[in-house]
Amino acid sequence: MFFASDNWAGASQPIMDALARHNDGYSPAYGGDPLTDQITQKFRDIFETDCDVWMVATGTAANALSLSCATGPGGAVFCHKEAHIRVDECGAPEFLSSGARMWGLEGRHCKLTPDSIKNGFEEIPQGVVHHGMANAISLSQATEAGTAYSVKEIEAMSDLAKSRELALHMDGARFANALVSLDCTPAEMTWKAGVDMLSFGATKNGAWAAEAVVFFNKQLGKNFEYRRKRAGHLFSKMRFAAAQFDGYFKDDHWLANARHANTMASNLIAGIQKSKKAQLAWDSQSNEVFVYLPTDLAAKLETAGAAFHEWPENTLAEEDKPQDGFGLYRLVCSYRTTDQDVDQFLDFLKD
Amino acid sequence: MFFASDNWAGASQPIMDALARHNDGYSPAYGGDPLTDQITQKFRDIFETDCDVWMVATGTAANALSLSCATGPGGAVFCHKEAHIRVDECGAPEFLSSGARMWGLEGRHCKLTPDSIKNGFEEIPQGVVHHGMANAISLSQATEAGTAYSVKEIEAMSDLAKSRELALHMDGARFANALVSLDCTPAEMTWKAGVDMLSFGATKNGAWAAEAVVFFNKQLGKNFEYRRKRAGHLFSKMRFAAAQFDGYFKDDHWLANARHANTMASNLIAGIQKSKKAQLAWDSQSNEVFVYLPTDLAAKLETAGAAFHEWPENTLAEEDKPQDGFGLYRLVCSYRTTDQDVDQFLDFLKD
Amino acid sequence: MFFASDNWAGASQPIMDALARHNDGYSPAYGGDPLTDQITQKFRDIFETDCDVWMVATGTAANALSLSCATGPGGAVFCHKEAHIRVDECGAPEFLSSGARMWGLEGRHCKLTPDSIKNGFEEIPQGVVHHGMANAISLSQATEAGTAYSVKEIEAMSDLAKSRELALHMDGARFANALVSLDCTPAEMTWKAGVDMLSFGATKNGAWAAEAVVFFNKQLGKNFEYRRKRAGHLFSKMRFAAAQFDGYFKDDHWLANARHANTMASNLIAGIQKSKKAQLAWDSQSNEVFVYLPTDLAAKLETAGAAFHEWPENTLAEEDKPQDGFGLYRLVCSYRTTDQDVDQFLDFLKD
Amino acid sequence: MFFASDNWAGASQPIMDALARHNDGYSPAYGGDPLTDQITQKFRDIFETDCDVWMVATGTAANALSLSCATGPGGAVFCHKEAHIRVDECGAPEFLSSGARMWGLEGRHCKLTPDSIKNGFEEIPQGVVHHGMANAISLSQATEAGTAYSVKEIEAMSDLAKSRELALHMDGARFANALVSLDCTPAEMTWKAGVDMLSFGATKNGAWAAEAVVFFNKQLGKNFEYRRKRAGHLFSKMRFAAAQFDGYFKDDHWLANARHANTMASNLIAGIQKSKKAQLAWDSQSNEVFVYLPTDLAAKLETAGAAFHEWPENTLAEEDKPQDGFGLYRLVCSYRTTDQDVDQFLDFLKD
Repeated sequence: MFFASDNWAGASQPIMDALARHNDGYSPAYGGDPLTDQITQKFRDIFETDCDVWMVATGTAANALSLSCATGPGGAVFCHKEAHIRVDECGAPEFLSSGARMWGLEGRHCKLTPDSIKNGFEEIPQGVVHHGMANAISLSQATEAGTAYSVKEIEAMSDLAKSRELALHMDGARFANALVSLDCTPAEMTWKAGVDMLSFGATKNGAWAAEAVVFFNKQLGKNFEYRRKRAGHLFSKMRFAAAQFDGYFKDDHWLANARHANTMASNLIAGIQKSKKAQLAWDSQSNEVFVYLPTDLAAKLETAGAAFHEWPENTLAEEDKPQDGFGLYRLVCSYRTTDQDVDQFLDFLKD
Repeated sequence: MFFASDNWAGASQPIMDALARHNDGYSPAYGGDPLTDQITQKFRDIFETDCDVWMVATGTAANALSLSCATGPGGAVFCHKEAHIRVDECGAPEFLSSGARMWGLEGRHCKLTPDSIKNGFEEIPQGVVHHGMANAISLSQATEAGTAYSVKEIEAMSDLAKSRELALHMDGARFANALVSLDCTPAEMTWKAGVDMLSFGATKNGAWAAEAVVFFNKQLGKNFEYRRKRAGHLFSKMRFAAAQFDGYFKDDHWLANARHANTMASNLIAGIQKSKKAQLAWDSQSNEVFVYLPTDLAAKLETAGAAFHEWPENTLAEEDKPQDGFGLYRLVCSYRTTDQDVDQFLDFLKD
Repeated sequence: MFFASDNWAGASQPIMDALARHNDGYSPAYGGDPLTDQITQKFRDIFETDCDVWMVATGTAANALSLSCATGPGGAVFCHKEAHIRVDECGAPEFLSSGARMWGLEGRHCKLTPDSIKNGFEEIPQGVVHHGMANAISLSQATEAGTAYSVKEIEAMSDLAKSRELALHMDGARFANALVSLDCTPAEMTWKAGVDMLSFGATKNGAWAAEAVVFFNKQLGKNFEYRRKRAGHLFSKMRFAAAQFDGYFKDDHWLANARHANTMASNLIAGIQKSKKAQLAWDSQSNEVFVYLPTDLAAKLETAGAAFHEWPENTLAEEDKPQDGFGLYRLVCSYRTTDQDVDQFLDFLKD
Repeated sequence: MFFASDNWAGASQPIMDALARHNDGYSPAYGGDPLTDQITQKFRDIFETDCDVWMVATGTAANALSLSCATGPGGAVFCHKEAHIRVDECGAPEFLSSGARMWGLEGRHCKLTPDSIKNGFEEIPQGVVHHGMANAISLSQATEAGTAYSVKEIEAMSDLAKSRELALHMDGARFANALVSLDCTPAEMTWKAGVDMLSFGATKNGAWAAEAVVFFNKQLGKNFEYRRKRAGHLFSKMRFAAAQFDGYFKDDHWLANARHANTMASNLIAGIQKSKKAQLAWDSQSNEVFVYLPTDLAAKLETAGAAFHEWPENTLAEEDKPQDGFGLYRLVCSYRTTDQDVDQFLDFLKD
């Protein structure tokens, strides 16, 4: 019954196989190798466009470095107040962008709305030097609450971004989970909907340490290579990252992993909805499930070996706070989650 | 009828006289001059303690550089969400501290409360690397809404700061106005109440460009000299800043200026309270007055030559928003404001 | 006999008069005032071109902020190894540019040569991410050794800069002294010779604290306003800086000051050349004189009240080091230096 | 005949095996896993002291982040002018330390000498704010020229560092090669000789992407965890790095790899010394060999498939520059280099 996080698993087997497959012989360092070129091309195929692609070690690096490309002096990025970039990256976006502010906005279940963006526009109006310059909107897809933006919602964000000449960034730490959930193409969920740059995560979905920054707007990323190196994020043995992506993309392994995790989450949701003890907090469109449980039941589950986290109440809207005697808990599924994990957990929720 | 801001006035005469008085002869550059020493000593006398004092050109520099002393990697400063450091300094505190976050908290009329600080403590708990490290609490005294913290309120903030080993910073851009309003000593309003470092502003109260960072906690400021120079804020002809402070402190000129500005504000308040057309928005303890006016009356005043700003609604709590047909306006008095300014303005508020 | 530095003097009288002249009444803050506009226009007249002009408090701010406009991630600025930006600004250019390197090159008497630049080009070749990106060449005019680049020499630097798409920056802390010495127009010494941006200093030549960044290449400076504010360098009472420039430029006061200082220096040089005790170290084209003196004579002069600095030997080429028993000393003249200062000093050099 | 670099090889088999060995099951993310603890303990055993250990992805990150711990505002690090941190890391140390200067000093074959350090001390004297503050000395062990500091030489550097309260940093990208060459213990080559902090590299010696920062002076590294995260260098699946180190240290695999590479280098040296066509440029104490070859012979070798780099002349002392018709070439051996590579290469050098 492991639902603590999707980054507690190791690498899935096809990733390991790919590392072994590409380990032989000498290959140019620092990304000059042919495998890195192949992977870049693979990204272009998957996204059906001539994007630029840069691999890095962590999602935080991907987010912070890409945002640093868009933000100028006194810059600001509109994001949800619970966005990973604002609350979970130890100030990396602020640091690597030399001080840009991650400007937190409201929105239920971690989703920005056009209204929340418009509030942001009022808070940082254009052309007032004291307030600095808003430069970007960042969406998490899927969000920190397991929800996802529909393609239409992304397009609405893009319209707002364009109205103020802001870059549109997508934090895709759980990109595959959202993609599979929306059942659209990678192109539809990104550049066709107006996304300028994407942090494309593979680590949570089965890789060891493989993230990529994808620039659909190539102009924004033109100095990225220098930014990556200047932050110590240029691997000398780059093929180790490229190999992971090779395993990730081969035979649509990435989609299979995400589909599996999402299915496990759906099964949890179905079980919760049937339960009289537990209550689904809100619907999710990815591999994360949020559930209200009686605190004593949660304790019982933990004693029985279930691993999952209570969600901090202070991040919740009033209407989402758990009733007395209940807590809000997050359950995360991954490519490793088994039917047995799910069934065993749901057993506790039965009468 | 000039109430637009307190930094539209030039320098008051004693400041000009002091500049002339100290202009003769050669004097060591970069703060090695005897006048700078005298002024430092004068600060120690005024604050009745052995503090360290560093002069800079702007309040933004004073705030950002002092906060940079307290903030470490992944750092954060708890402040009001409308604090000048968060919304009006173009990201200077974030930039000069290499990315520390100004963590905006709620509180009516721009005042932080113990509860708002406790919310901040939950949002950035101790010892979680992802959330970074909270390092300081910053209070504006007087606040951006013209209110002031009582000595007791400052002490409560200090207790909270100590409970988490945070530095307590005071943004004293309008220090003198708050001081005169509270009718306490500079020591009581600062280090005796637990303040570690202070941005002491003179510019808004009659100087040309003279601000000082005062470290009551000298350990915090031990590298300040290097920080100041590294940010381009070390004047070569430092005595020009020191001379302004000499004029500022001589014969308690600074207190006289502040008292005058506050009195003008009090007169405005008294007139508003008598008016049936206007309504005082909230009480203030400094040189700023916030008033609801019918928008057509405001327009009429402006046509008649009155200068003042409408306050952005998006910064206000629901209960402070003006009724339909009304706007919220800020009136700022300064050492130059005249009885005639006030009377003329109040005439428009009469029946 | 005061020759220690040109920043130990206060402000010259016309500067003080201008401050008084512009002190009355209210005027918009933060550079929105008409005087700031006038001064900007005055710069355009003086430089005979439509440049952008931003006033700041210190030469270090002017240098560091302007260089930050030209430098990208992993950036570097070619400069003389003794350049002020490299050795005397406490890392401000590195800090305010988020890490650009001031890349020190050789050259006698603090002047870069085409060969030294070419060496730099080899050290930081184009397009190698590990080495970062060279972005600019910075010249000090006049240099730290009192020498000046001829217009032809500046043009040669500009050709080299253009060959690598580098910005050409001029550190004009002693701009007026070089200008008067070369006897050319401000335009000829700057943009007509290929200079993209200039730190225009007034402080050493009679102002209190008045420096300006002038962008001939306006594209480079397009975000300067935000950079200035983000570094805490936007004066609220901007007219105090503008007023200084008003006094500075009125009736060519700046040129008169520089001419006076240079004449005093020339008189010193003439006296040194006649002396059998002292020896001119090298010719200078500004207000600084470098002289070899017997160390006992130097001591005698100091005892008699002369103020001047010994120059650190470690900065000197082998062929410029003083002989045994001699030291190398720097004498700086300013607008305040008197014939009496010079004559009294030269008296000690007579047989 | 592959001698281009030691980072063109993939991971050695024991590293791969270790990754597979530790891939199963769930394990806490972000370094909270037991394997990370074990590896930390293993470092303590190897270094015979209670050091702090933090794993990162690249050598540049290890260097830049560790140096950022030691450098304050206006900081500077004394290093060789050809040091990797100064010329090959795209300004990462400058950037991640918020502007500290890598202060290049002279020294033949990339080794600093006490005299070069003393020159540095004169260039950045203590207590002069304009020059900033020197904070550290950084040694590359082995150096960029394949040489190594003896334990006595490191001790001499430590004495100098202590005399100015500087931290002593070692860039150990090729730590194992130097260690094996000196035939001393890891403790003797580091903290016993006065080293405060070490960038311990495994990547060039057989890992995929595994570097560690080791703090012998734990006080220096007390906030390292936050610095690492803030720069995006905290792996979520940390065990992937820990696993590499597990394979690296198991059965002294790291020493075997380094010994092999060094032996291959020694064999090259022996062959070069016998050759009448080639000439050893200088002795080396690691896996790098520097050799003068006739340029036509070098071309012939390359045609025959040999991979190696010409060394840029501009980095060389006059006395080390190649004669006419010759070039200076670097040959790097690694754990993968074979006797056949070496023999085949040496065949070309025979008469």
